[in-house]
Amino acid sequence: MSKVFIDVGISLDGFIAGPNGGVKNPLGDGGMNIHEWMFKQKTFRDHLGIGSGETNNTNNDIIENIFNRIGANIMGKNMFVEGEANWPEDAPFHCLVYVLTHQKREPWERPGGTTFYFANDDIFSVLEKAKKDAGSKDVRISGGANVIQQYLNAGLVDEFSIHIAPIILDSGVQLFEHLDKSKFSFEIKNVINSPEVTHLFHNIKNM
Amino acid sequence: MSKVFIDVGISLDGFIAGPNGGVKNPLGDGGMNIHEWMFKQKTFRDHLGIGSGETNNTNNDIIENIFNRIGANIMGKNMFVEGEANWPEDAPFHCLVYVLTHQKREPWERPGGTTFYFANDDIFSVLEKAKKDAGSKDVRISGGANVIQQYLNAGLVDEFSIHIAPIILDSGVQLFEHLDKSKFSFEIKNVINSPEVTHLFHNIKNM
Repeated sequence: MSKVFIDVGISLDGFIAGPNGGVKNPLGDGGMNIHEWMFKQKTFRDHLGIGSGETNNTNNDIIENIFNRIGANIMGKNMFVEGEANWPEDAPFHCLVYVLTHQKREPWERPGGTTFYFANDDIFSVLEKAKKDAGSKDVRISGGANVIQQYLNAGLVDEFSIHIAPIILDSGVQLFEHLDKSKFSFEIKNVINSPEVTHLFHNIKNM
Repeated sequence: MSKVFIDVGISLDGFIAGPNGGVKNPLGDGGMNIHEWMFKQKTFRDHLGIGSGETNNTNNDIIENIFNRIGANIMGKNMFVEGEANWPEDAPFHCLVYVLTHQKREPWERPGGTTFYFANDDIFSVLEKAKKDAGSKDVRISGGANVIQQYLNAGLVDEFSIHIAPIILDSGVQLFEHLDKSKFSFEIKNVINSPEVTHLFHNIKNM
């Protein structure tokens, strides 16, 4: 059955982006360091269209598995705005992306198979639509932190994966806040490690 | 050569204890859940003198390795005060423990080999004494968070291990704050996982 999953890179201290982020400073100060491991990998570079990278290693396989399972993405308005200004024309999703926003805007189709839908509905309705579109594939709650927290607290997420970089950011956008721990709990499903990053895969038990 | 190491259990969101901790509520609200995996293990239960537990598993081996390498501990005053009121008479260290405090007090020898020294010196001098006492064994900076942060920021720590429980505490005593990331960085040394906890072992590169 189709799953709803979160998959996000974090620092040891739980930040998904550094401080002072925005259109001109995507991922904030030092935030790119969270994803250093990912920027080396072929599958990720292919998606961004930025040239060759490493292959035949666990980190690349993990990225490939994530991309392959996604049937539709859901993201917040801020993540979209930051991305719109920085993604290549051929946006790096290559499938449907629902943007949660109050703005009314026609669907925006990009070369390479990404179409952005601007959804003015609540998070439940948008997830229903995304699930229908995804078919047998999965729905990724892409971010940012606020959207991830909303979906977790609503008990709508099945799996939660984090990729922990061995760095301290000290400030920025914190993943682990505004969470209602009475609504869900984590079960460790699998852990995969490499010298650069630790991948923690959890199942979620919703109360 | 003798190492200086930190080894501490945390929640996914980086807390080493819950809120409202103190003599009557050791580890704070929910804080005991961080160590649930540990309380099941024979080696840990033996140290606390609280009866039999599980053995022949990775989690027990990890605890045994930690205890075996310790020649001396260093801890803060608050950790000692909370422990003094709650540890069994046969205190669970079974070696030398330096307590960083302004209080003047004679050494306190417990049955089972634990002796508490009340050190009125700075963190550097206390570490020098502890290293001398530890001989070929290692020195553990036991906690709490403030003492750990002081030793990390002073560039005095060689290894940093965390045992991540798959829980959210949301508030309490945060490990990853007041850290000066310009002073040191982490290198992933090893990761060991179990269904209950993920063990991350780091070497520290001091600048």
